[in-house]
Amino acid sequence: MALIVQKYGGTSVGSVERIKNVARRIAKWQNAGHQVVVVVSAMSGETNRLIALAKEIQKNPDPRELDVIASTGEQVTIGLLAMALQNLGVPARSYTGTQVRVLTDNAFTKARIKEIDSHRIMADLNDGKVVIVAGFQGCDEEGNITTLGRGGSDTSAVALAAALHADECLIFTDVDGIYTTDPRVVSDARKLDVVAFEEILEMASLGSKVLQIRSVEFAGKYRVPTRVLSSLTDPDIPVDEEANSGTLITFEEDPKMEKVVVSGIAFSRNEAKITLPHVPDTPGIAYKILGHIAEANIEVDMIVQNAAKNGLTDFSFTVSRNDLDKAMKVLEKEVTPYLGEEGILTDASIAKISCVGIGMRSHAGVAAKMFRILAEENINIKMISTSEIRTSIVVDEKYMELAVRALHKAFGLDKATKAMEL
Amino acid sequence: MALIVQKYGGTSVGSVERIKNVARRIAKWQNAGHQVVVVVSAMSGETNRLIALAKEIQKNPDPRELDVIASTGEQVTIGLLAMALQNLGVPARSYTGTQVRVLTDNAFTKARIKEIDSHRIMADLNDGKVVIVAGFQGCDEEGNITTLGRGGSDTSAVALAAALHADECLIFTDVDGIYTTDPRVVSDARKLDVVAFEEILEMASLGSKVLQIRSVEFAGKYRVPTRVLSSLTDPDIPVDEEANSGTLITFEEDPKMEKVVVSGIAFSRNEAKITLPHVPDTPGIAYKILGHIAEANIEVDMIVQNAAKNGLTDFSFTVSRNDLDKAMKVLEKEVTPYLGEEGILTDASIAKISCVGIGMRSHAGVAAKMFRILAEENINIKMISTSEIRTSIVVDEKYMELAVRALHKAFGLDKATKAMEL
Repeated sequence: MALIVQKYGGTSVGSVERIKNVARRIAKWQNAGHQVVVVVSAMSGETNRLIALAKEIQKNPDPRELDVIASTGEQVTIGLLAMALQNLGVPARSYTGTQVRVLTDNAFTKARIKEIDSHRIMADLNDGKVVIVAGFQGCDEEGNITTLGRGGSDTSAVALAAALHADECLIFTDVDGIYTTDPRVVSDARKLDVVAFEEILEMASLGSKVLQIRSVEFAGKYRVPTRVLSSLTDPDIPVDEEANSGTLITFEEDPKMEKVVVSGIAFSRNEAKITLPHVPDTPGIAYKILGHIAEANIEVDMIVQNAAKNGLTDFSFTVSRNDLDKAMKVLEKEVTPYLGEEGILTDASIAKISCVGIGMRSHAGVAAKMFRILAEENINIKMISTSEIRTSIVVDEKYMELAVRALHKAFGLDKATKAMEL
Repeated sequence: MALIVQKYGGTSVGSVERIKNVARRIAKWQNAGHQVVVVVSAMSGETNRLIALAKEIQKNPDPRELDVIASTGEQVTIGLLAMALQNLGVPARSYTGTQVRVLTDNAFTKARIKEIDSHRIMADLNDGKVVIVAGFQGCDEEGNITTLGRGGSDTSAVALAAALHADECLIFTDVDGIYTTDPRVVSDARKLDVVAFEEILEMASLGSKVLQIRSVEFAGKYRVPTRVLSSLTDPDIPVDEEANSGTLITFEEDPKMEKVVVSGIAFSRNEAKITLPHVPDTPGIAYKILGHIAEANIEVDMIVQNAAKNGLTDFSFTVSRNDLDKAMKVLEKEVTPYLGEEGILTDASIAKISCVGIGMRSHAGVAAKMFRILAEENINIKMISTSEIRTSIVVDEKYMELAVRALHKAFGLDKATKAMEL
C-alpha cells in the first residue's frame, strides 16, 4: 500500500464526462489498495471566466477580492469529483484550501505555501476515504483566501505530497511525459523515463510548460518523487502499468544518468535582444542600464558585455519579446547620456536554444560541441550564456528549428539512453 | 449614525451593471455616516446552474458536496461587490460564511444558524469599512461548508442583524414592499407601511414569497426591525427617503394597528383536497391516515373531520397539488382497510384564501363576515380553518379571483389604514 497524491489539471476535469473518467482512474488506484489524495484545478476556462468577470468591475481587480472569486473554480471541481467517486462506490470527501488548511503568506494572487495541516486528510485516508483538495488555493494566518498564481495546482500537489510524506506525486496532464525536446519541432523527440530535478528546473525556467516552476522547486526542496504522466489514456489501464508510465523526476545521483551529458533541448522564440554599442566601460555601467529595466519590472534573461576597446564596450541583453517596447521606452528616457553614436540596436527575430543536462557538470566540451554543430550548419551564434547544467545560445529565429534538430541528433537524444560522445 | 444590515437578492446582483448600482446605493448610506453590513445572494441563475452541474454527475447529489459547490455562487458576488465599492472609493471587505464565521448545524442544504461571530465584522465597521457577507451559507463545528436552503440569504441577513444588534435590517428586493394582497389579482392592492411580525409570518407560511419564512421566524425571535423595500429605484434617492420606504415589520403592539382587523389577504392555487368519506370514527383514525402521509414527507395543510354519524365520519385534508399523486399512492396502499364504499375522493381544482390580521385576536366575527361576503357572491365554501390571526377557506379555483377581490374590498384594504367595520 502506498500513499499517492494525484493532480489533475483543468483540461482533465474540463467536462462532466472527463470528471467521471478521472473518478474511474482514481477508483482504480483506491481499489488496488492505495491511499489516494487528489488535487484538482478549475474546469478549463473557468478561472479565465471568473477573472474576466472581476475585470468587468475593476480594471485592476483588488487582489484579495480577486482571490475570493478565482478560488471558487476549484471549489466547484472538488465537489463534483467527490460526487463522481461516490457514484463509483468510493467514499470521498472534498476540502478547500482553507478547510485543509493550506497556510500561505498573504501575497494575494501569488501566495506561497508556508505549512499544510495533514491532520484531517490523514484521518480520512485511514478511514478508507479518497481525499480531494482544491488546488491553487490556501488561506493566510487571518483566514483570508489566497491563490498561488497560474499553475499553482501543481505546487499544491507537490506541497501536499511533501506534507503527507507521500510515496509519489503523480501530475496527470495532457502530455505523456517530459520529452528530450518539443516533438512538434523534432519528430524524433523521445520521452524521458527519468529526468533529474535540476534538469527539469532548468527546462521549466526556459519556458517548457509541463510543470510550474515553483512546484519543481518545492519537489526539489522536499525531495518529493514526482511523475508527469498522461490523463488521456484509458482510465482502466492497469495500475502497475500507469505507475511506471510518464516521466519520473528524481533527486538521486543515478549512476546511469552520469553517462548522459545532455538530457534535453529547450528553446524559446519569445526573446528580443537589445544592444547598446560603444557605451563607456566604467564601473557600474551595467547597473546604470539594467537598474532602470528592473525598476520597470522587466525581466532580463541573458546579459553579455564584450571586452572593452578604447574605454568603450558593447552591452547586450535579452528580454521577453512582449517587453521590448516597454524596455525601449525606459532606455530612451534613462540611458541616453551613456549612449554611443549608434544609439540602441534591437533584434526581435531571435531565438534561444538551451542544452540541459546534469551530466554537463563533469563534462566540459558541451559548449564546444554545440558551436561545432551549429558551424557545420552555417548558423551564426549571437549570444552565449552558461550555467552549471545548461548551455544557452541565441541564434536568428529562422534557424531555430534547424539548430534544434541538429543538436538533438548530435547529442544522440533520438536514441534510447546511451553513453554520449563529445 | 446607525448600524444597518442590507440584503440584496439574486436579481439585484444579476449582472455587472446591477452590482455597480447596488454599490452606489450602499456607498450612499456609508457616505451618510452609517455603518453598513451587506448580505448578498448569488447572481440570478447561478445557483441553479451549479445545482444542475452537480445533478449531471449525481442524480441525488451528496448534500455535503452539493453545499461545497452551491456556496461558490455567493462567494463570487461578495468579491465583485467589494470591488465595485472600492471603485467608488468606499473601503470594503468580503467574507464567506466560513470566514465570518456563521456557525450552523450540519444539516447540509438546509442548515440552521446557531451562532454568528461578530468580532471581525465589528472591527472592520469600526475601521470605516463596508462589510460584505455571503448569504445562504455557513459552516458547521468541523468547518464543513453548509447552506441554509432556498431563500437562505434573507435568514443570513436577519441573523446577522440580530448578532450585530443592528438598528435595522433592509431586505432589498424587486417589489417595493408588502401588499394587502397580490396586485396582479387585485388592482386596488395597497402597499402596507407597517405590518406585524405575526402577520408576515402567516403570509409567508401561506406562500407569499416576499420573505423566506425562516428569516421571519428569526426576526421575530430576536425582534430585528426588518424592512422590505425596492432595489429597483434610482440608487441615488436620498437616504432619508429610502429609509422610510417599503414595508416595516414591527414587533410592537402598535395602538394604531389595533384598529385594523384584516391586514392582508393571501391566496394559493397550489392546493388539492383529499376526502375519505365514511371512515370509522375510532380513536387514532386521523393518525392512521395522516401518519402514512407524513412518513412519505408530504406536508398536510388543512384538516377537517366532520361530526360522526352511525360511527362513520368524513375525513378531508389538503396537500400541495404537486404531492397529490404521491399522496394517493400512499393512501391506496395503506388505508384501503379503513375506506368506505366511495373510496377516496380528490379535488385538484381548489384554491385557498386566507384573511390575516393581528387585530383578529380581539375581534370575533371575521370568519362570519368572510362567509357573508362569499355567500353574497354565491361562492360555496368547501373547507374552513382558523388560527389566532388567520381565517382560511377553500373554494373552487375558478372563484378565487372573485373571492379575493370581494374580500379585499369588504375589509377596506383598498383604502388607507382606517378603522374597520365588521
